[in-house]
Amino acid sequence: MHEHSKFLLADSQIPSAWVNVLPSLPEPLAPPLHPGTQQPLGPEDLAPIFPMEVIEQEFSPKPLIDIPGEVMDIYRLWRATPLYRARRLEQALDTPARIYYKYEGTSPAGSHKPNTAVPQAFYNKRAGIRRLATETGAGQWGSALSLACQLFGLECTVYMVRCSYDQKPYRRMMMHAWGGEVYASPSPHTNAGRAVLAEHPDSPGSLGIAISEAVEDAATHSDTNYSLGSVLNHVLLHQTVIGQEAKLQMDQAGDQPEVVIGCFGGGSNFGGLALPYVLDRLAGKGPRIIAVEPTACPSLTKGRFEYDYGDTAKLTPLVKMYTLGHDFIPPGIHAGGLRYHGASPLISHLVALGHIEARAYAQTPVFNAAVQFARTEGILPAPESSHAIRAAVDEALAAREEGRGRIILFCLSGHGHFDLAAYESYLGGQLVDVS
Amino acid sequence: MHEHSKFLLADSQIPSAWVNVLPSLPEPLAPPLHPGTQQPLGPEDLAPIFPMEVIEQEFSPKPLIDIPGEVMDIYRLWRATPLYRARRLEQALDTPARIYYKYEGTSPAGSHKPNTAVPQAFYNKRAGIRRLATETGAGQWGSALSLACQLFGLECTVYMVRCSYDQKPYRRMMMHAWGGEVYASPSPHTNAGRAVLAEHPDSPGSLGIAISEAVEDAATHSDTNYSLGSVLNHVLLHQTVIGQEAKLQMDQAGDQPEVVIGCFGGGSNFGGLALPYVLDRLAGKGPRIIAVEPTACPSLTKGRFEYDYGDTAKLTPLVKMYTLGHDFIPPGIHAGGLRYHGASPLISHLVALGHIEARAYAQTPVFNAAVQFARTEGILPAPESSHAIRAAVDEALAAREEGRGRIILFCLSGHGHFDLAAYESYLGGQLVDVS
Repeated sequence: MHEHSKFLLADSQIPSAWVNVLPSLPEPLAPPLHPGTQQPLGPEDLAPIFPMEVIEQEFSPKPLIDIPGEVMDIYRLWRATPLYRARRLEQALDTPARIYYKYEGTSPAGSHKPNTAVPQAFYNKRAGIRRLATETGAGQWGSALSLACQLFGLECTVYMVRCSYDQKPYRRMMMHAWGGEVYASPSPHTNAGRAVLAEHPDSPGSLGIAISEAVEDAATHSDTNYSLGSVLNHVLLHQTVIGQEAKLQMDQAGDQPEVVIGCFGGGSNFGGLALPYVLDRLAGKGPRIIAVEPTACPSLTKGRFEYDYGDTAKLTPLVKMYTLGHDFIPPGIHAGGLRYHGASPLISHLVALGHIEARAYAQTPVFNAAVQFARTEGILPAPESSHAIRAAVDEALAAREEGRGRIILFCLSGHGHFDLAAYESYLGGQLVDVS
Repeated sequence: MHEHSKFLLADSQIPSAWVNVLPSLPEPLAPPLHPGTQQPLGPEDLAPIFPMEVIEQEFSPKPLIDIPGEVMDIYRLWRATPLYRARRLEQALDTPARIYYKYEGTSPAGSHKPNTAVPQAFYNKRAGIRRLATETGAGQWGSALSLACQLFGLECTVYMVRCSYDQKPYRRMMMHAWGGEVYASPSPHTNAGRAVLAEHPDSPGSLGIAISEAVEDAATHSDTNYSLGSVLNHVLLHQTVIGQEAKLQMDQAGDQPEVVIGCFGGGSNFGGLALPYVLDRLAGKGPRIIAVEPTACPSLTKGRFEYDYGDTAKLTPLVKMYTLGHDFIPPGIHAGGLRYHGASPLISHLVALGHIEARAYAQTPVFNAAVQFARTEGILPAPESSHAIRAAVDEALAAREEGRGRIILFCLSGHGHFDLAAYESYLGGQLVDVS
């Protein structure tokens, strides 16, 4: 009999509800503030850009929220995603640690992003919306939302950060293949974009700028809503299918994680895996949890925990989060999905409360781990996800130093099929560490 | 209760043996001939480039051949692959047909190719070989073999058809990420390559030329063997895991296919799905089986069934197959993996015996079906695989015309993540049909 390395679930084991940690928090989140009045905002303030069912989820006091059947029907196209034990990587590291990873790259878009794109498209369709506007960094989110909109018969407009638009033409083409409309951001289509272009005609763009454009597009068209791929509570809520499945699969494996790891940009794949384990911690029996970010955009490790805008043009509400400042433009690292000045308020809150550790890595050690992973486990990881691999490898090496086992679980949030130029640069010795 | 659209297998249901149709053929295959003497060749003639265990499989009289444990360990990283019922596509076509597809794109390399790359690397490693040389068209095979060699500690040299080398840099980079060494073919590294370059310095290359280079490399280095990704009996043998799994999954679905479809280049994904069903036909109770090729390289539909060389430089044995002539250079269509002048001798034999139908399509209708598939089923298919989609759609539309059901099964052999430029060209109305 072989030793199992892959743990699957039947369709009947896919979670039928999302897990909401809001009612379990020892202290409530600081309320979002209206960008004009700076006063706490109500659901009606968000109604111009979000459907009411999504707004309710953003503030919901319910511990579990049912997943609609129409969403389950689409989740089942690729969910449950596999959980693997990385036996070949363990062997290469000569570590007594056991390393598990939850692989979200099997979705059609290649990452965890459709977990929330699908319900967001569904709720907007049900609210009578015709079109969604959004931003995208590396293109993972934009392609996920293009797919989801196509499946529900919505139009999709994507403001793609200029430097990614130029460097990652394949992601842009993928959005086209799924029927999405893509503009390089800053674009001449919005006031926010035109204002940036007037001052910096060659601006490489940033997520903050692209968010401003998408929010403005939604706010100024009554048939159009805005959709965000990370940061907000309802986005992380939708992603909790990841952690719920992982728990069932770790049970199958007969191991309980002592360390749970995810890469961190806005917080969506990280929260998706970590939040169900956060509930265990809040109940007094959870694992260590580590958020891993790039040194080039170190919001959790170097940012301040304070109210800030989610975008450059100050169109979004102010939220209390770890932030580098809404006008911070990070250098153009390959992990474009982690180039956000802020952080999920929920995860920020849990970091401040001491339930989550944060760690930052430069590009070179991250790609070193990515190549080792690709050459042992076979899967070619996304640069974003490879931050989690780096931390998992370091935890496994620490276990070796200490001469004792350690059970590590990380989220491999996506594949790197559209990031091969970054690999080529690393393998050619041309990668520069910016921080 | 929802209607099932996805059929999975447990690790314990992955086939533990490959299915060999050779002993069941009503007439034996015509023997391969030595390129020098034109006489039937023996195992010893192939020993300079293949390990003996592979040569035995090429001619094996055994109906089942056990899969080594070391190969099973790697198969389990992604196998069993899922089988889907394409309910959303059926709905879009408004057809009474039921369409199923076996999806091989979940392997790390993104196609069915690792099914044979892994055992070939394993047998070569066990025979003490240090390096494998091979050719690749679109890059699917070269990346699969680079991965397999990496997992078994072998070096890998890939001769990549020049036009793909230039058009698909990401596939080349993927091989690098897995440690493969890649040359554009025709290359200055071999006599075969230099001969072509002397006459045609700007040659776009062809699979026939690249095979000549790889065979020469293997034949002239004692520590190096040659590895082929299609055409030969042992390659199709390894691919029969596809059809064996599909049969178990169709049983789960409670349907038996009336039509089995695969795209056809050299014959490996086609044979992988079809051969277990061919055995049913040979026993008098099998489905219709359709091989789908591009009109630009119509070996089965327009070629002659006769002895020909597998490569341009006449280094390979002569085999009896449908061929367009070993010096035929097909136009540079996007389905680079289907640009082969010849065809599997085994599949050719079955076509000649009337057990397999052949059909050809031009690029535009193929991409039309690919986009419809991507926008209903979510998965972005490879241009090669999309030939099978086109035929499945046409069979489903024929069923609608006839006003009766039809159960259709096809092989979706790989994803199109590295073919997005082709999609962009199609969507932009710039695709040209060459034939």
